[in-house]
Amino acid sequence: MKLNENFKNLKESYLFSSIAAKVAAFSREHPEKKILKMGIGDVTLPLAPAVVNAMRAAAEELGNKQTFRGYGPERGYDFLRERIAAHYRELGVSLDTDEIFVSDGAKSDLGNFLDLFDRENTVLVPDPVYPVYADTNVMAGRKIVYANACAENGFLPMPDESVDADIIYICSPNNPTGAAYSAEQLAEWVRYAKRKNAVIFYDAAYEAFVSESGLARSIYLAEGVRECAVEFCSFSKTAGFTGVRCGYTVVPKELVCGGLSLNAMWLRRQTTKFNGVSYIVQRGAEAAYSEEGKKQIAKNIAAYRENAGEICRALDRLGVFYTGGKNSPYIWLKCPGFSDSWAFFDYLLENAGVVGTPGCGFGANGSGFFRLTAFADQKTVREAMERFAALFG
Amino acid sequence: MKLNENFKNLKESYLFSSIAAKVAAFSREHPEKKILKMGIGDVTLPLAPAVVNAMRAAAEELGNKQTFRGYGPERGYDFLRERIAAHYRELGVSLDTDEIFVSDGAKSDLGNFLDLFDRENTVLVPDPVYPVYADTNVMAGRKIVYANACAENGFLPMPDESVDADIIYICSPNNPTGAAYSAEQLAEWVRYAKRKNAVIFYDAAYEAFVSESGLARSIYLAEGVRECAVEFCSFSKTAGFTGVRCGYTVVPKELVCGGLSLNAMWLRRQTTKFNGVSYIVQRGAEAAYSEEGKKQIAKNIAAYRENAGEICRALDRLGVFYTGGKNSPYIWLKCPGFSDSWAFFDYLLENAGVVGTPGCGFGANGSGFFRLTAFADQKTVREAMERFAALFG
Repeated sequence: MKLNENFKNLKESYLFSSIAAKVAAFSREHPEKKILKMGIGDVTLPLAPAVVNAMRAAAEELGNKQTFRGYGPERGYDFLRERIAAHYRELGVSLDTDEIFVSDGAKSDLGNFLDLFDRENTVLVPDPVYPVYADTNVMAGRKIVYANACAENGFLPMPDESVDADIIYICSPNNPTGAAYSAEQLAEWVRYAKRKNAVIFYDAAYEAFVSESGLARSIYLAEGVRECAVEFCSFSKTAGFTGVRCGYTVVPKELVCGGLSLNAMWLRRQTTKFNGVSYIVQRGAEAAYSEEGKKQIAKNIAAYRENAGEICRALDRLGVFYTGGKNSPYIWLKCPGFSDSWAFFDYLLENAGVVGTPGCGFGANGSGFFRLTAFADQKTVREAMERFAALFG
Repeated sequence: MKLNENFKNLKESYLFSSIAAKVAAFSREHPEKKILKMGIGDVTLPLAPAVVNAMRAAAEELGNKQTFRGYGPERGYDFLRERIAAHYRELGVSLDTDEIFVSDGAKSDLGNFLDLFDRENTVLVPDPVYPVYADTNVMAGRKIVYANACAENGFLPMPDESVDADIIYICSPNNPTGAAYSAEQLAEWVRYAKRKNAVIFYDAAYEAFVSESGLARSIYLAEGVRECAVEFCSFSKTAGFTGVRCGYTVVPKELVCGGLSLNAMWLRRQTTKFNGVSYIVQRGAEAAYSEEGKKQIAKNIAAYRENAGEICRALDRLGVFYTGGKNSPYIWLKCPGFSDSWAFFDYLLENAGVVGTPGCGFGANGSGFFRLTAFADQKTVREAMERFAALFG
């Protein structure tokens, strides 16, 4: 057998696995210390009651001979895809339900969608960004070029005509910087993609956090976008589904290249290497779109926004440079007094018991930066920022 | 962008999608006709009450602030992996829980595990067999060679020293033929794999149906097997999880090649392109191993076995050649009066309203054969076999 040698080019472990290992080691050595986790982007508020009730009822259905269901439809149940299409209609986007594919999460789809592409593609990845965009392409041996996000461009890189790219990743609102593109900026990316005959992988996992007007919640409002963009989204951060697992991917039918339809290819890939999402989970996701579910979820998102505000105010008081927090659950700060983000991670863990995410884990431009998340509960956020202030005040 | 041209070498649609489309078209044209589905390997009996109760309780846990859980551990929850390890101990196999990876199903893992391999590997696939083994390798552009399963070798091909293979697929009990290897036969495959420096992908999805002694329920009893075999298994056919979605893959730590550990590579692949299985589903799978759950599940499997017996007896009476049905929910029969399995499929659907699976969908050797499954309910199976007898008696 010949293994995939590209794995040797990956960093030894996935960023969040490294953090978890460091935190576990610290806990073992200091079992008395209370650790405040503001690192991994994991939600903490319970599921909306409407979602819980729907999943409980679905589990019961499966326990009953008359209502039992086995394998579900290939793209996901109609009841869910129709809700997703309705959500897009509210954003002003019209989609055919056959363009929506339900999955167990955006992370799976972002990785697996690359099965549709040849090794010979140049991938354009923002720096800093969610590490799986680069890692999944390193695994496939693709050439990666980076689009620099920095304070000078408001952490929103724009197309550079001199760069040739075939696959373009956009994450908006961005993880980790929290920066979000306007509709007009996305339209510029779409025009660039069309000139380059490239495809855009648009990660909209944090769209529910957009609060300022003029910022995009989907890429599908730009002209000509249906010929060049796939959109990945998730219920993880919207409805607190990080442990429930549900997401979806939109593949417009106009997305065709060399006689191959990406919609048809993705259907073929998913029917061959995937067997759908749990019926129980799909019923839960459907309930997240009910009137009751929407209200309950909006309350959770408001609480996380409140936390983000708390973090921003604390950093304002300390005079620490940061971005994000407004249209995103992430706050991206310059490490006060440190140029190395892992050194800052260790210092903060050891001296304040606060866990964040080292910026360098998101790319070279993240060096010296640090990501805090607004997903912890209010008490944790307050205490963490008090400890933070005591250390750096 | 440059798409993966290997997709052009795939048959237009996945076997079971083609069947579903044909059945849907027939239903539209003949809405009055009652169709008896004995085709896709989908279960029909409801989930065990122990499983339903566990999933309901888990959904409630997620709705409560004190018991909410987000992202789960990377390989799956300990509570489930310990149960799986205990199941293996009952079969006489000792595994470290770190060698067990919980997933959303064996189909996903069988496809995704190929990410760990270079394109330059020769794949040995039984013919006939579950079509995803070949399809997933066609997508990656790998060379496929076939091991012929036919009446002469009892549908159990054995190693051929003249064939060089790097990745060897074994499905036992086999889908579609129902043939199951003995422990000694598997040991011979293991010795062959070691001589060839190959890896065995062992699909044990139907192990719970093994009823005759001397037949293997896991490959891990053979000597030296931990250096050359990965085992894929699923709760789909054991606990009726086709719509719930849970499976697992075993990757022994001794499986190392050229300095790369497959266990470490799979962990890296899964942490980068997957985010775990729903907590609710994992609690359901755990409950399938409880004393109560095991008893309830055994009752379901007994009912499916009873159905298989019903089908076998009907074919015996008609003098139709078949295999399987004893250690498997599948009955593999020679199409009476037809040499083309799709023609037989159409004839059976149109004249008896019975849906099965054309043997040619499982490989060239399946031509002229047909697969019936024992998963329909007793009434459906009886009626289907009566219609079958009326047509061919």
